Order: sequence, then structure tokens, then C-alpha cells
Amino acid sequence: MRDRMWASVQAAQDEICAGLAALEGADFEQTSWERPGGGGGRSRLIQDGHVIEKGGVNVSAVHGELGQDAAKAMSARGVDTSDRRFFATGLSLVIHPVNPFAPTVHANYRYFELGAGNAPAAWWFGGGADLTPSYLFEEDAVHFHRVLKELCDRHDPAFHARFKAWCDDYFFVKHRGEARGLGGIFYDDLHDRPAPQLAALAEDGLRSFLPGYLPILERRKGTPYTEAQRIWQRIRRGRYVEFNLVWDRGTHFGLRTDARVESVLMSLPLNAMWVTGHEPESGSPEADIVAILKAPRDWV
Amino acid sequence: MRDRMWASVQAAQDEICAGLAALEGADFEQTSWERPGGGGGRSRLIQDGHVIEKGGVNVSAVHGELGQDAAKAMSARGVDTSDRRFFATGLSLVIHPVNPFAPTVHANYRYFELGAGNAPAAWWFGGGADLTPSYLFEEDAVHFHRVLKELCDRHDPAFHARFKAWCDDYFFVKHRGEARGLGGIFYDDLHDRPAPQLAALAEDGLRSFLPGYLPILERRKGTPYTEAQRIWQRIRRGRYVEFNLVWDRGTHFGLRTDARVESVLMSLPLNAMWVTGHEPESGSPEADIVAILKAPRDWV
Repeated sequence: MRDRMWASVQAAQDEICAGLAALEGADFEQTSWERPGGGGGRSRLIQDGHVIEKGGVNVSAVHGELGQDAAKAMSARGVDTSDRRFFATGLSLVIHPVNPFAPTVHANYRYFELGAGNAPAAWWFGGGADLTPSYLFEEDAVHFHRVLKELCDRHDPAFHARFKAWCDDYFFVKHRGEARGLGGIFYDDLHDRPAPQLAALAEDGLRSFLPGYLPILERRKGTPYTEAQRIWQRIRRGRYVEFNLVWDRGTHFGLRTDARVESVLMSLPLNAMWVTGHEPESGSPEADIVAILKAPRDWV
Repeated sequence: MRDRMWASVQAAQDEICAGLAALEGADFEQTSWERPGGGGGRSRLIQDGHVIEKGGVNVSAVHGELGQDAAKAMSARGVDTSDRRFFATGLSLVIHPVNPFAPTVHANYRYFELGAGNAPAAWWFGGGADLTPSYLFEEDAVHFHRVLKELCDRHDPAFHARFKAWCDDYFFVKHRGEARGLGGIFYDDLHDRPAPQLAALAEDGLRSFLPGYLPILERRKGTPYTEAQRIWQRIRRGRYVEFNLVWDRGTHFGLRTDARVESVLMSLPLNAMWVTGHEPESGSPEADIVAILKAPRDWV
């Protein structure tokens, strides 16, 4: 399973980057890194591009001994951490486009194992993808969610409702009382069926990324926009930063352990603004998206 | 003490805003707010100004019943929370100038009480001020720290060393292994001498703000700068956001209770950037300030 998933996320990185690079008209820059404790990864980045303001597509496969804090957090969730050897592999991506009408997207699929590789003491899968626009286009939201529903339905007809609700619940900016974006799917700690079935779900999720997102980026990347719309985009990206730094468990955990800071914070946008007291005019497109973030919808 | 401190912070707000507004050439905008549970405050803001890109000077006096989480956090620190009635007043300010050579500054002086007003079950003072430049000017750092040392020395010759170390320790961005800025002074939970003495320290701290900061802002506000220097300033402000959202206990606490979000997050800059992989050229002024943030100095 370790080898299978590491091969899958690497292949997905190649495929996803090729698709996005074709739209950008330029390649991602690659950085390979090694983890002192074991393993390493390959980060690919486009920054300050024509289409993508900041986009990172990272894969890693790391192993070693769980630290005190990590072991404690896992025990608290009921995981047997008597054997602290771990292995983790996954792909994580965030794309923040230049155009304020093109939505930010996030996806992450990962596999985690405790113990010896041949007979792991514990293992689980996590994953999902979600969309965060600054302006609402219903057809984009419907398309994105439809691709995710079809993906889920290929594996279990019960998955989509469960993972959609999990996503709405997880990506919630509590102090603002609003969702980070329009949701998608999210799951974690999944080990309630044979590992090969969950591996197939993750692999299908990775393959579904481009069909779900690329048509949207293609459609919106050339829309003319004003400076005021760029400012609104930056304000929304400030909210994205708030979620990731204040509420995201993965980021929180990464910043308190020996994770690679540049990878953990790759998700942050190139530009963000905090305009105190900013209130969108009632009835405006800016007010529309905020209203929807306060009351998540079913899109399919 | 409640009345005395509330009067002191209001007077300080007037004085500090008058000094900064004179330099800005425009007044602060005021918003008064009431807390549903009791009390309220007065926020003053300059945003997108000529000298100040974003600056907030807020005062509040609130009272009510401590929530579950707040009481738990205080008990954990050894405070007797059998009587949950509380009162808190203070002034909090953050100024982010436009000019990348003019430093960001933060100051906060506050008084907290539990129980009935005439015989509080517990009370304490907290406070401090610290400087966060994007570029180092030694004379600015020395001046700022000297004013704070003189302030401390007027009250207790042991204060400055203690509060300077406390500040370096508190404003540390652990995941970056660097200080937020050049420090200053910080103290919290102070109740180890008669309250009127600590009130006098806070009032002197409030009066010392303008003499410590205004000459620096005056000196740097007109320095010519390049676009690259503005970008560096925004990157440093991204680090400021990281500290406040990830490590600042006050922000963390405020976002998890019923505090006013706009006040809690007033400290965030108008503009911030996250440039993945950005490394200042060795020997550059940008590399100089980073080196100092990694090894805090004594400035007086």
C-alpha cells in the first residue's frame, strides 16, 4: 500500500501539473526536499503567473518515529500508538488564480500508517477537494460538485452526502460564522473498509481533479475585472488565511511539529488584505457570495 | 480602580490619536460599540492613509459573567474563579505605516478584575509595547527601547530587564524560529504589588507611547522607496499575521469567545503577502533584519 499510494500521488502530480501548466502557458518550478527524519517530497510551484497568482502541487512520502505531540493527538482519537513508527504519503494542492472571477481550489489525498510496513498497527485515508470563489457562478459550483458526486458514487452511493456534510463542517470559519467556500468533499481517518477500496477512491479523486476544476478556470481566466474586484478577492483571501492559520488542524499541527514550514504554508495566497469595517453593498455580487457562505447549499 | 483605569485609557486614546492624526494630516474615524453582555468601546481607525496604511487605537470597558472557556483558562493559571463576574478595560493599538522604512508598532495596556467591584476576588494588570520594522535603523530601535527603559525605571529598577525578556519570549514566531520584531516590553497577570502602583505604571506607559514612536514615524515617513521594498514590507506583514493568528493568546482567545471580531483582528495589516521560497540576498538590508530577528539584542 505504501508503494502503491506513493506511486499514485507522484503520477497524479505529473498529470495535474501538466494540465495546469498548459493553461498557464508556463511550467511549474520544482523543488525536491528531504526530511532529516526520513523520506522527502517534491513541491511544484507557479507564482505570480498570468493565470495562476499562486499555485502549489506538492507530494511527499515521509517516515520515522511519531513525536510526543503527534502520538498524544492520535491516542486522543482512539488510535493505538504503542508502535510509533509511521509512514505518510499524499498529494496536496492549492491554486489561487489571478482573475477574481476564477475560484481558489484546494485538494488533498493522503494515506497514513503506523507500525511495520508489512503488518501495520493502524492505517487510514484522508482526502477531499473544495472550491472557494470570491464571486458566485452557479454553473461553476454545480459542475465542481457534480464531478465530486460522480466520483463518490462510483465507490459508494452513501459517500457523497457524508463527505459533503463533513466538508461543510470542517471548512467553517467559526469566528466569522461563515464557510471558507462553497465546499466539496472531505473525509479523514477512513478505515472502515478494505484498504484497496479506499486507495481506489483516493486515486479516482486525484484523477477527478482536473475534470472538476480546469473547465472552470478556463472559463473565468480571461474575464475583465476592476481594481475594486481585485480588492474584494484579496479580502476573501484574507479570510482564507484566517481559516488556515486559526482553524485548520493540519496547519496547526504542522506548525507545532517538525514539518516543513514552506510546505505547510504553501496554501497561503500571494496577496491578502484586511479592510476593517468592509461591508459589501446589499444586493451586490459581493453580498451574494457572503450570504451563500453563511448558509451552505446543496449544489447537485 | 475600574473608574480610574477606564478614564485613563480614554484620555490616552484622545492624546495618542491627536498626535498621530497631526502627522497623518487627517482624523481617525470613530466607531462606538456596545457589548450585548455589558459595556462597550470606542474604536478609532485610519485606513489607506498617506502616512498610516492601517492604524487602530481602541479602548473598551466590558463587564459581565465569564464564559466556561474563559473561566477554565483562568483556573488553569491558578486564579480563583468561584465568582465569575468580571470587568476588563484597556487600550490596544497597532499602527502599520505606508512607508516600508517606518516600523509597525503595537501597544496594549489593560486592567482585569473578577468579582464585585468594591472587593474584587482577583485583579491584574497587563501591558507593553513593541516595534516591528521591515528594515533596521539602529537609532530607531535604541530610541524606542530607551523610552521604555526610562518608563520602567521610574517605577522599579528591576522592571525593564524582566519585561524586555518577557516581550522577547512572548512575541516569538516559533514555526519560523524568529522574533516578530525588535521587542520592547511585555507583562501580564501582574498583581505582585499594590494596584495603584501598577495603575501608575500603565498610565505612564500610555503617556510614553507618543514620545517613543512619533519621532521614528516622523523621521521615516517620507523616505523614498521602491516597489521591491514595498513587497518586502508585505512579506514581513505576512509574518505579523502568522504570529497574531497562530501564536497570540489574546487573539486565539478572542476568536473562540464572544469578543468583537473586528476589534480582535484590527491588528492585521491592510496588505500582506506570502511569497513561497523568498530568501533575502545575503548581505542585503532584508537579510540584516532577519538575522536580528533570529538573535534578539539588547538595545539599551
